[in-house]
Amino acid sequence: MKTCLFRIIQPSDGYKPSYIFDWTILALIFASVLSVFAETFALSDPALAVFDRIEIITSIVFSVEYALRLWTADLLHPSLPPWKARLRYVFSGLAIVDLVAILPFWVPVLFPGQLLGLRAVRLVRILRILKLNRYMEAIAVIGGVFRRKARELAASCIFIFFLMLFSSLLMYHAEHDVQPDKFTNAFAGLWWAVATLTTVGYGDIYPITAFGRFLGAVTALLGVGLVAIPTGILSAGFVEHFSRSSKPPAPPRRCPHCGKELPRG
Amino acid sequence: MKTCLFRIIQPSDGYKPSYIFDWTILALIFASVLSVFAETFALSDPALAVFDRIEIITSIVFSVEYALRLWTADLLHPSLPPWKARLRYVFSGLAIVDLVAILPFWVPVLFPGQLLGLRAVRLVRILRILKLNRYMEAIAVIGGVFRRKARELAASCIFIFFLMLFSSLLMYHAEHDVQPDKFTNAFAGLWWAVATLTTVGYGDIYPITAFGRFLGAVTALLGVGLVAIPTGILSAGFVEHFSRSSKPPAPPRRCPHCGKELPRG
Amino acid sequence: MKTCLFRIIQPSDGYKPSYIFDWTILALIFASVLSVFAETFALSDPALAVFDRIEIITSIVFSVEYALRLWTADLLHPSLPPWKARLRYVFSGLAIVDLVAILPFWVPVLFPGQLLGLRAVRLVRILRILKLNRYMEAIAVIGGVFRRKARELAASCIFIFFLMLFSSLLMYHAEHDVQPDKFTNAFAGLWWAVATLTTVGYGDIYPITAFGRFLGAVTALLGVGLVAIPTGILSAGFVEHFSRSSKPPAPPRRCPHCGKELPRG
Amino acid sequence: MKTCLFRIIQPSDGYKPSYIFDWTILALIFASVLSVFAETFALSDPALAVFDRIEIITSIVFSVEYALRLWTADLLHPSLPPWKARLRYVFSGLAIVDLVAILPFWVPVLFPGQLLGLRAVRLVRILRILKLNRYMEAIAVIGGVFRRKARELAASCIFIFFLMLFSSLLMYHAEHDVQPDKFTNAFAGLWWAVATLTTVGYGDIYPITAFGRFLGAVTALLGVGLVAIPTGILSAGFVEHFSRSSKPPAPPRRCPHCGKELPRG
Repeated sequence: MKTCLFRIIQPSDGYKPSYIFDWTILALIFASVLSVFAETFALSDPALAVFDRIEIITSIVFSVEYALRLWTADLLHPSLPPWKARLRYVFSGLAIVDLVAILPFWVPVLFPGQLLGLRAVRLVRILRILKLNRYMEAIAVIGGVFRRKARELAASCIFIFFLMLFSSLLMYHAEHDVQPDKFTNAFAGLWWAVATLTTVGYGDIYPITAFGRFLGAVTALLGVGLVAIPTGILSAGFVEHFSRSSKPPAPPRRCPHCGKELPRG
Repeated sequence: MKTCLFRIIQPSDGYKPSYIFDWTILALIFASVLSVFAETFALSDPALAVFDRIEIITSIVFSVEYALRLWTADLLHPSLPPWKARLRYVFSGLAIVDLVAILPFWVPVLFPGQLLGLRAVRLVRILRILKLNRYMEAIAVIGGVFRRKARELAASCIFIFFLMLFSSLLMYHAEHDVQPDKFTNAFAGLWWAVATLTTVGYGDIYPITAFGRFLGAVTALLGVGLVAIPTGILSAGFVEHFSRSSKPPAPPRRCPHCGKELPRG
Repeated sequence: MKTCLFRIIQPSDGYKPSYIFDWTILALIFASVLSVFAETFALSDPALAVFDRIEIITSIVFSVEYALRLWTADLLHPSLPPWKARLRYVFSGLAIVDLVAILPFWVPVLFPGQLLGLRAVRLVRILRILKLNRYMEAIAVIGGVFRRKARELAASCIFIFFLMLFSSLLMYHAEHDVQPDKFTNAFAGLWWAVATLTTVGYGDIYPITAFGRFLGAVTALLGVGLVAIPTGILSAGFVEHFSRSSKPPAPPRRCPHCGKELPRG
Repeated sequence: MKTCLFRIIQPSDGYKPSYIFDWTILALIFASVLSVFAETFALSDPALAVFDRIEIITSIVFSVEYALRLWTADLLHPSLPPWKARLRYVFSGLAIVDLVAILPFWVPVLFPGQLLGLRAVRLVRILRILKLNRYMEAIAVIGGVFRRKARELAASCIFIFFLMLFSSLLMYHAEHDVQPDKFTNAFAGLWWAVATLTTVGYGDIYPITAFGRFLGAVTALLGVGLVAIPTGILSAGFVEHFSRSSKPPAPPRRCPHCGKELPRG
């Protein structure tokens, strides 16, 4: 029975009950996310009661699921002793997501006191969609590219970070005297720099002096260029990955004429 | 005569009447799109009458064209029995576009009652430009890249989707008390999150508290990074496609032991 | 003397007078562009007179240069008869730029009457920087990539164009009743759609109804995705170009042992 | 002792004291940057005194570090005579960063007079994070790609630059009469063009006439396309770099005529 349960809760690859289980969990995730959003409306009491019930039901289902996964973790790593297998499971990426998703329900139950802000944390449940079998490989691809190009990405982020701090401080000095209520301190300059470098540009804060506008123009143009660097690195990382993986390591070939093994290439 | 008609209405590849037919249809599409836009102006009655006539003429021409294509569909799939060929045509991508483009004209005629909102649907006619022979291959290339990289793209969209929902809820909690008229509920937060992550930034809604701005800055920076992932995946997909299709056939390899030619593979 | 002049006005590759000529022209271009911008300030008469003189001088220099290039065009295409060589020169890309750059000066002189709006056209002189020897190859690379990927780029632009027209019309219908002064007609919707799809987002026009915001969010997200397609195509085009050109067609190799020609690969 | 000191201040690769030294410097950099930002708040005198002390301490530490690096520079280039080694060090990229970072402290000390604006320059210290051993290679990769593709990037920047100047002047002429307080002169048009082409779009300045909006839409669409060119070039540059460095050595080729191994090349 344990093996059967294990097979059901693992990402489905053709097994019908496992498929049904996956979609039930997905439906519960969407119900739960919807209720988190709906609760922010000024609702009548009966409506709120419905959403409260949804939260209780989904939280209990997800808790039971977590317990089952913990119980069957020894089947996931058959080579390890059970307690080690369970420990490894507890600290795996998506198991932490699972735990974080159910904690906001149990913390106020176990330790009374209002922690409503924690409700947003329930949204991590969305990430569980990635647990579906079909996304497993894609996540590994994206994660692998980020890992392999980590240093180049970090170096380009340091440049962006420097440009952000530098331009924000210069802009603060350039505009503080003219717009003391907008550029109140260097952190207001930082807010401007983020809005400019990411090209969001809300328009709540912007330079009005000639020098400030010159600075702003240079920052915006450099920003577009700097953002192109990590994009280029990521593109190259994906190209590298796909070009590699599209040529799987073939078994050694043999010459059909003399039967000897051929060198690779 | 049927074969001749068939050749005319098929995408032209050198045949003169077919070329003229293509451009007539294109001209009618532009006239029709222009009239859809022009009708939204507060116009005098004679002007509206002109646009009404344009709509009637183009709709009838497109309807006749659809009928002709349906009639000659058996020449498109000569290996199938006529009724099967026609059915396959009806459910092909661009035939659905054709049908959708003429329906808004016939629905109110057949079932009286105002359905003016449907007029916008006539704009799908624009997509028919893609039917020109020259775009056939390009569409196949773009579609193929999306299909091959569907899982990686979907996985990165789930991350963006999660960041969108998560940041919108946190932002709602951070700003609701200070700007209750802007961040009225979590959906206002979602509107903010979309404007920020896509870097549109209209400026109708933005954080003003210190924590809200910190959240907003983190969201904007993460957003730029997350948007770079699908761009990189698409780039790599196109590189993969073009490098495959342009790779010249390698010369035959030879066995280093006996010198004879090796079979490909 | 004609050959000497020809060598001077051609893009320099080491010849000193040609180098000096290039930089003189560049300096005049910058003086001319600066004067076009400076004239828009409310200036005193003496200042305006200076800028007028700059325009007269640069225009005459550029006219003389154009005449010289036309005169020496037969040395550029020595295989053609002189009149054919000159005609070919007149219709080459950068010669048209040259002509357009001097016309705004001569048109009012030859045909009196105010054509001040034409002054902006003088800015095409900036494009002449590309005539420098060092950019010749880069321009060819960029142009070549655009030409080779023209159909894929055009097809993705048609999608963007369709999304733009479609969302603008829907948005007009969604918001016209609530904001009749903003979404006055479908062209106002088009202005909104361009600002949203290019992620500029000035904030002068945006949806405020729930359905309008939903439409706007979908448009913005689709827009980001659609813009990633041409970026990816261009990336792949450049990758293809550089990977090809970095392996120049080598001369046929020969086996050092037996001296016979080897197959490519 | 000099060799020992040299080993400590060089980027760490496993040596413990060098590792500790690196992290101490990093901590001081962050303290210094934080104090530059904190000083812009309207603070009480005791708080300002703390930040003043932080600046004095970090500046002295960085000065001592610079002196030590200068002293041990002959060990960095052992093949050069000491004075040449020191001169080469002084003019190397990150040594200039070091010097610029300490100058704002010493200039007012040596030449009294207020130069507070120079304080922002202290932020270049952030760039010293790149000195860490782990980023050395990444910086070389990014720098190399920019150097190899410099001409293509410059050529595409000239196009962007031209579009920027051209559209700003046209927009000035189109909108000056209707919004004389916004589009006061062509430089205001330039500010609009930068905000539009980088898609920042603050919303402080935008066209309102029909022709102005048409111009603005064309500019925004062309701008998105033009920005995609350098992104594509950078992507291709990174692809080229990574594919070169990761390509495994091919197996030796053999002559198809005699079967003997061929030399590489």
